[in-house]
Amino acid sequence: MRTDLARIVGEPYALPGTGTEYTQDASIAMGLRGHADAVVLPGTAQEVADVVAWCYSRGVAIVPRGGGTGYSGGATPAPVPEAAGPEGTVVVALDRLDRIRSFDPGLWRIEVEAGVTTQTIARRARENGLMFPVDPGAAEASQIGGNIATNAGGPHCFKYGVTRAWVTGLEAVLAPGELVRVGGPTRKDVAGYDLVGLLTGSEGTLGIVTAAWLRLLPAPAHAAVPVAAAYPTVDEGCAAIEAVLASGVVPATIEYLDAGALAAAGGSFPGGLPTGAQFLVICEADGGEDEVRELVEALGPDARAHEPRELWRWRDGVGIAVTAVQGGKLSEDIGVPLDRLAEGIVGTVEIGIRHGLEACSWGHAGDGNLHSTFLLTPGDHAQLERAEAAVEELFDLAIALGGTVSGEHGLGWLKRGQLSKQWSPAAVRAHSAVKTALDPAGLFNPGKKTP
Amino acid sequence: MRTDLARIVGEPYALPGTGTEYTQDASIAMGLRGHADAVVLPGTAQEVADVVAWCYSRGVAIVPRGGGTGYSGGATPAPVPEAAGPEGTVVVALDRLDRIRSFDPGLWRIEVEAGVTTQTIARRARENGLMFPVDPGAAEASQIGGNIATNAGGPHCFKYGVTRAWVTGLEAVLAPGELVRVGGPTRKDVAGYDLVGLLTGSEGTLGIVTAAWLRLLPAPAHAAVPVAAAYPTVDEGCAAIEAVLASGVVPATIEYLDAGALAAAGGSFPGGLPTGAQFLVICEADGGEDEVRELVEALGPDARAHEPRELWRWRDGVGIAVTAVQGGKLSEDIGVPLDRLAEGIVGTVEIGIRHGLEACSWGHAGDGNLHSTFLLTPGDHAQLERAEAAVEELFDLAIALGGTVSGEHGLGWLKRGQLSKQWSPAAVRAHSAVKTALDPAGLFNPGKKTP
Repeated sequence: MRTDLARIVGEPYALPGTGTEYTQDASIAMGLRGHADAVVLPGTAQEVADVVAWCYSRGVAIVPRGGGTGYSGGATPAPVPEAAGPEGTVVVALDRLDRIRSFDPGLWRIEVEAGVTTQTIARRARENGLMFPVDPGAAEASQIGGNIATNAGGPHCFKYGVTRAWVTGLEAVLAPGELVRVGGPTRKDVAGYDLVGLLTGSEGTLGIVTAAWLRLLPAPAHAAVPVAAAYPTVDEGCAAIEAVLASGVVPATIEYLDAGALAAAGGSFPGGLPTGAQFLVICEADGGEDEVRELVEALGPDARAHEPRELWRWRDGVGIAVTAVQGGKLSEDIGVPLDRLAEGIVGTVEIGIRHGLEACSWGHAGDGNLHSTFLLTPGDHAQLERAEAAVEELFDLAIALGGTVSGEHGLGWLKRGQLSKQWSPAAVRAHSAVKTALDPAGLFNPGKKTP
Repeated sequence: MRTDLARIVGEPYALPGTGTEYTQDASIAMGLRGHADAVVLPGTAQEVADVVAWCYSRGVAIVPRGGGTGYSGGATPAPVPEAAGPEGTVVVALDRLDRIRSFDPGLWRIEVEAGVTTQTIARRARENGLMFPVDPGAAEASQIGGNIATNAGGPHCFKYGVTRAWVTGLEAVLAPGELVRVGGPTRKDVAGYDLVGLLTGSEGTLGIVTAAWLRLLPAPAHAAVPVAAAYPTVDEGCAAIEAVLASGVVPATIEYLDAGALAAAGGSFPGGLPTGAQFLVICEADGGEDEVRELVEALGPDARAHEPRELWRWRDGVGIAVTAVQGGKLSEDIGVPLDRLAEGIVGTVEIGIRHGLEACSWGHAGDGNLHSTFLLTPGDHAQLERAEAAVEELFDLAIALGGTVSGEHGLGWLKRGQLSKQWSPAAVRAHSAVKTALDPAGLFNPGKKTP
């Protein structure tokens, strides 16, 4: 296998599947490690197409892989042989497709290959007075191809929308190994079905994105000012969030941390937290002083403005601080309608209690997107089993609240099978029909995102 | 047939297909009138599902229909028997699904049935300090179901995005007659494939949208101020548009009219046009006085602010004014990358000259979306034939410029077959595979949006 693949991508770029670098992702905390028969790093989109054609004609499964920063095991080869192709599995890592093909700052657009990191795009935009607002948690390592595959979000997506909103066109390899382009630099296009949207968020199960045309925006004229306020209860915090919505301001972010997350991370909160703080709301205004003033008023007497870098550096460390409490965690990303947010937050803790687990949550409050988390001690298998049962209950809760089992991380391997809880049988049939239509042999990322 | 259907929807709501009310749309100017064996007006989503089930089990084609304001013949039954179902055609008009199911202004969201007009949604939002920014040309008659089916746009979509950006969930009837829901009031959801996006813009060829959950936004804090400026040439006008992009302001709209459109409609332009005006740019700022000032500066010495209602009433009348020149027109809606806009505008006129036709264009400049139009004298069949040949060239031009044959109107019946010019064979195969997957019998709006 490797000899054949080396002929396509070049000897140095066809690796054995034995290393761990390309067979695990950020879900390694859950012990997820997959098996691959080879790892290839194509240098061009055409090489990706050639690899896919080689695999597709031979019954070899294809696992596309970006930065490997996902939490769902979407970019990890499946850990069980039943979910491999009949003739094995090849990981197709997009790292070397890292060219910016074109950049037209004056036209607010950029064309990038799949392996360009999110941070690189954001930096290039910023250097030219523009903004690429998608800001998932690991922007320095995550790649735009992976952002597209998962339709990634982040705090600023509350105002600016998730990845899909910024993609005007895709180049992708579809079965059985065809390089296609749908959309492009044109901002509006309704000629065909929305295959750009269909591929976005498909987690590599319908094809491999090799390049994208992205929209950009001028950077806001006003500096971003995060305003944070603490509350003694979840209900008071959620009431403040609704007051923000009623203010008429559209904040760039509406984030929250619950009591457990504050217990883990609050110690290093810039300027410290008031005694009795059990809930924190962070809204960022990027529309000028009036907006800042209105946010401060909506968030109440304790609200104060923060220096953005300092505040966001702290916010970026929340996940690590929560992990540090017991050494490990099982973290999900359910989404609920905004009016059910408090129930999701309280419910997360209650589910933890029922399973003898410390639980907390934080996340993108404005989008109703909770990172519901159960703390774990590494190596405690009984506890991990309880956490897995707790997560099942958490998904049931999200669905009971009219929400989703995944707001931004995707189903990947770890949440496979969960969609059937959320969608009716007829909707699931439509989902499966689309998969079969575009991947008749079932070789694109098998076992992932299955209903 | 009608007796059976009357049992589902009630006697008064099962009509014969002989009337013209439901068998033509705004493309009647092109003489397009379809044939239906019956027209039904279901009163509930379940009745829609029952009608589809009845049709699907009998080989009867289903033509979903909103306000009938489309220009592509998408909501018109196909005019030739080959494109009907083997057992005939039923038009399913959504007029009676006109309930607002829920409205939560404080949460910026509304749940509406497919037959609610765009204007009603915009008005309800406005009355509550909110905004529904999608503003297609016939908002008083067009229905949200049709807006979704075509992924409708409008001037303000430059800043705020097209219909898809505002839909968080859909209720729809899929083959063979199943009422499903994907998404809902939750703002972020990546659990399944983006079936919301796939149905949006599918022009009723994959199913029938019966209801939608929509996002809304607070109305901008500042009054909208349109700023317009005239130029002596296309190139100078397009240079002004690029100056606007470079200003750092994100205008709500960037519209243009070329010389021919101004010749038809310029006489009633509020305040009059300067002598020698051959190109008009209209940008609207909704972010306060600084933005207005920057737009005025970017648009140059002739730029001046306008009263919004007066200006937009005039702009809404442009299509009618152009029609009035010769009594008829053939108008398309190609899209091009913004840097190719001038070529699209000049090319439209040149194509007209080559075919002995007066031609002009106007449209959504910021989105590169041209309403390229050939003037016609009603009843002149030779001229109509020349116009049809001109339109083919126009589509070739759009594609040569890296654009699309439809920026916002869709393919419908009139542009069937055009996608194969724009997409590669492999992409077209994916398009067809999706159609077959969701509509295996090919009964949803047959003949429409075919590649």
